[in-house]
This record gives sequence, C-alpha cells and structure tokens, in this order.
Amino acid sequence: MEIQKITLDHGSGGQASQELIRKIFLKHFDNELLARMDDSAVLPSIHSSIAMTTDSYVVDPIFFPGGDIGSLAVHGTVNDLSMQGATPMYLTAGIILEEGFPLDQLDRIARSMAESARQAAVKIVAGDTKVVPRGHADKIFINTSGIGLVPDGLDVGAHNAKPGDLILINGPIADHGITVLTHREGLDLQSELTSDSAPLNSLVAEILSGSDKIHVLRDPTRGGIASALNEIAEQSGISIELFEDKIPIRKEVQSACEILGLDPLYIANEGKALVFVAPEDADNVLKLMRENSLGKNSAIIGNVVEDNAPRVLLRTRVGGTRIVAMLAGEQLPRIC
Amino acid sequence: MEIQKITLDHGSGGQASQELIRKIFLKHFDNELLARMDDSAVLPSIHSSIAMTTDSYVVDPIFFPGGDIGSLAVHGTVNDLSMQGATPMYLTAGIILEEGFPLDQLDRIARSMAESARQAAVKIVAGDTKVVPRGHADKIFINTSGIGLVPDGLDVGAHNAKPGDLILINGPIADHGITVLTHREGLDLQSELTSDSAPLNSLVAEILSGSDKIHVLRDPTRGGIASALNEIAEQSGISIELFEDKIPIRKEVQSACEILGLDPLYIANEGKALVFVAPEDADNVLKLMRENSLGKNSAIIGNVVEDNAPRVLLRTRVGGTRIVAMLAGEQLPRIC
Repeated sequence: MEIQKITLDHGSGGQASQELIRKIFLKHFDNELLARMDDSAVLPSIHSSIAMTTDSYVVDPIFFPGGDIGSLAVHGTVNDLSMQGATPMYLTAGIILEEGFPLDQLDRIARSMAESARQAAVKIVAGDTKVVPRGHADKIFINTSGIGLVPDGLDVGAHNAKPGDLILINGPIADHGITVLTHREGLDLQSELTSDSAPLNSLVAEILSGSDKIHVLRDPTRGGIASALNEIAEQSGISIELFEDKIPIRKEVQSACEILGLDPLYIANEGKALVFVAPEDADNVLKLMRENSLGKNSAIIGNVVEDNAPRVLLRTRVGGTRIVAMLAGEQLPRIC
Repeated sequence: MEIQKITLDHGSGGQASQELIRKIFLKHFDNELLARMDDSAVLPSIHSSIAMTTDSYVVDPIFFPGGDIGSLAVHGTVNDLSMQGATPMYLTAGIILEEGFPLDQLDRIARSMAESARQAAVKIVAGDTKVVPRGHADKIFINTSGIGLVPDGLDVGAHNAKPGDLILINGPIADHGITVLTHREGLDLQSELTSDSAPLNSLVAEILSGSDKIHVLRDPTRGGIASALNEIAEQSGISIELFEDKIPIRKEVQSACEILGLDPLYIANEGKALVFVAPEDADNVLKLMRENSLGKNSAIIGNVVEDNAPRVLLRTRVGGTRIVAMLAGEQLPRIC
C-alpha cells in the first residue's frame, strides 16, 4: 500500500488544506470551538488574571520512548502555564510540515496531542498548518501557545525565592534529554530509558491548594536544573545550595551520562518541577507531591542561602563544594 | 567586519540564549510583562469573552517590498483576531532559527515586529527561540499567537452571511502574493509592486462602532478572495455573486498575473478584509471604510444570493458567468 504524504497543496489554504484539517486535526482535536474553523476561536467569558505562553518544538527524533513531538508540545506549554500557578485552559497548535512528511505519522502525532490535551484537561481551540518544500524544514515543527487562569494574588515567579526556602523536585532528573539523545544517536545502552514528559498541572494544583508557603515554581527543561536554578538565583538575588546525594537520578541515566561525558544537572526534563517552599511547610508539600502519581519519588534537594553574589553551589558526595554555573553553550541540540 | 551569526548555543536555554533574548528581543519588544522572563507572562485581569488564534509564517524571501517576515507575522495575527471583531491585545512570538542566520537580520526582524506591534497597539508578552542545525530549517520561521477582547453578543463569523448582504473590500487584491512571488523569483516586471501587509484592527473597530449590520468579516490571505468567499458560502449555506469589473486591482498586479498565468482571485492578501453588510447599511460602511487610511479604495464587489448549492459566481467583464471554485491545489508556496 502506498503511504500518503504531505504535499505543498496541503498548505495552500484551499481544498487540500481543508481536507487535511478535517481528516486529521478536527478528527482528533474534536471540540466545538475549533470546529467553527474561523480565523480565530471565540472562547467563553473570562473573569480572571491570565497567564500566556508559547513554545516551539523541534525535537529530533519526533518519536521517542515515553512520547513524541505532539505530546511534548502539549505537556511543555501546559507546564509553562502551571509554573505560574495558572490553571491551563486553552492551547493553539501551529504546525510546520516538510513536503513529503508521511500522513500516517501526522495522524499519530495529532492523536497524541489530543490524548495529552485530554489528560491535562485543556482544549486545542485554534490551529494553523504550513507546508514548506522538501529540505526547507526537517519533518515537522510544532508551536503550542496557551493561556491559563491565575488565582488572584498568587506569585510564584522566579524572582520570589527567599532565604531559608527548601527546594523540592518531584522525581529523578535528566530522563528526557538522555532518552532523546541516545535514541537519536542509536546508542544501545542495554537499558530502558524513557522520557519523563508529562503534564504537571494536577500536581501543581494539589500543592497550591494545600500550601500558601510556595514561593517559586519552575520546570527545568532546556539547560536542566542547573540553568533553571541559576535563573532563579539571579532573579531573586539569592544563592542556592544543592546536595548531590539528595538529587534523585535513575541509575541507568547516571551511567549514560558518565559514558557520554554529560553532566545530568544540565540535561533537560519535561515532567519535573522545582518547588521552593518556606521551611516550615516543606514536609507538608513533600507529602502532597508524593501522593501525586507524578511525584512518588519527590525529594528535598537543597535550600536558599544568602550570599555575596547570586550563585548555585553543589555540595558533592565526597564532601567538596563546586559552583554550578549557568550553561554557557549548547550541550544537546533539538532536545525539545 | 565579521557578521555575527546564530549558533546552536543560542538555542540552548543557557547563557547564550539569555544574551540573545536581552540584546535583541527585550531591546525591541520592551515591555514590563515580557521583561520578567518567566515561563509565561501574567497579564492584567480580563472580564470579557476572548478570541484566540495562531499562525506560523514561513515566507520566502524574508524581506520583500512593503514588509518582512516580522511585520507579516504581527499583522497576520492581529488581522485574524480583528476578523472576529475582537480588539487584539497580546501576542506571543515563537521563533525557529537556522544555525548560521545573521544576527543583524534577526535584529532587523525583531525591530520590525516591535514597530508593527506598536502600530497595532498590541504587546508581545511571551517568546521562545529555538535553533536547529544548518539545513534543518530555511533561515527563520515565526509563529505568532494572540488573544483579543470580543464585544458581548458580536458574531461576524463565516457562518453568518445572509441573502441580500453586500460584499465590500477595502482596496485592491493580490498585492501581497504577487509581490512576494516576483521578488523571490527575481522577476523584473518594470513596476513597483508592494505588499499590502497591514494591521486592520483600526479599520475594523471603526466600522463595527459605526454599524450594527455587519454580518461577516474575513481576511482573504492564502488562497485569495476566491478561497475565503467559498468558505463563507459553504459555512453560511448561501451563494455569492461577484462582479469582475468592481473588484479593485492595480494595473501592474493585473499585468503580472497575466504574464505569470495566475488568477488574482486566488492570490494572497495581507491587508484586506471582506466585509458582508446588510444592504441598507452598505453605503454607510463603505464611507467609514474609505475614511480609514487603509480603505481609501474600498469598493462593493458583490452580493449574497440564495441558490441550490453554496457557490461563488463571477459575472465577467464581457458579460459571461463562471463558477469560482475553491482552490484545489497550491498556486504559490511560502507566500506567508
């Protein structure tokens, strides 16, 4: 059987475009707001402060253990909204396709986006598809933008860390980056690596409703926990002390990092949140996190200290201390 | 002097990414919401129904007479919101760069986006930059998503055309598509072709505040007025009669279409609105449109009729009638 492929006609704005939208996107994203197919979606009335975000996904390979570019695109934007304490509500999907991309793969990706959206209780309400000639893009790129409702008075931005705060994370680090890298390079490490890509909105909702002592939320994606913590240190004007032996990491991920000469602190995560909590409420928040299916292996990994300059210090297993700098260059391209 | 170029480091999420954001995007898009650099922007409270839209721009060439990929990306999303009768408020920008892209061109594009946003009175509140290795994308792709406020009870969607409505347009057709095509192919047609790319929100606000008899608004972008009118005919279950001698078109655009064998009805516009108005208020709306600087050459080009099947009919200059079908395939790739 011949495999049907994307042609330039599918990006024309004419009949072929409309058929593609109906047969793939409307089928999977089925909802009344998208189905009107106007130039923009009209949403129900909002009476709230809102958060708005955007991310483009260019991950290679587009299918990997634990997800694909479609689920990643939904999770990533859901998580960016969640990290403002917002309840994610509506997403848009802007898709750039390379001529010749197989339709069955597009169908699989659209289904995966729809499933991820359902799981996160968000709706994909507007979309756009462009096709570029062969060689002008690599297979498929997806932009997702989103809005969410922000509770009045809540501020969990990166500027809000306070001395004494304890730093929690909801599980092992570096799963996503190492999985994508080894899968792309075809490395056989004799182990079951899986991306941690997941929507964090339910976990965030549970800890925010159970604690009013949460100061910062941040998802350590590109650049890993090292980059995210450096940004928080700089924006809050504080320093951070991390304890190497407290940072959860899977044995197989640790081994892969050693073999490849990569520092897991700089490797991307796609289902992890760093949570800064006032010390008196840290045990409570840790308990709430562990009760969520995405937080069973949550741990306290460090704390906020006052210091002369904003920086991140790692207390190593062997009792030493080193400065964890902001990632200067690129460790791994096209990880998300 | 060496021209600085985008490297993979600029997409790392680390220090090089942050420098790029500060030196180019924050400089031009300067606003307090973006400047916080959190994972998502927190916007002021909204008490309204909102419209939401997304579009990716892959135009080639990225600079053309009358605009560039940056101004086009802002105008396009502003216009998609305006076509719902919404007041565009906030945009996001998701940028995919090819390794090696010159920084001075990126600076020029960011400046152009900022100027277009100011002109349309919208803010770019969140952004994302990804870099892919050389050959994995063509120079630069930009996604803009946006939200706008929709007045209570307003419905100007494509499903709302009514028999008897007159159809207005705010000036000559096909300028954008023909300009981009001839510029890309290096055709010297001895004429001054310029894209019509422009933000239509002020024109739309003026006609909506001066008339409550506007039934449909639509910007005829990809696929031209032929595709837009076919969509409206289908969604409203009506037919449309167009008068060829009433449709404004520049002489040089008409000539270019003849030379190239292209039908201007199918060529993209980026600063045009199709406006369906109840007949008793058409002269009033035409006058309002002509008072706006983007509507000086507005004209009534057709009307809505009842018919057995939804279709678009063209009454030609020579007195004949032909059916204007939906664009089946692709006339021109990478026009927007």
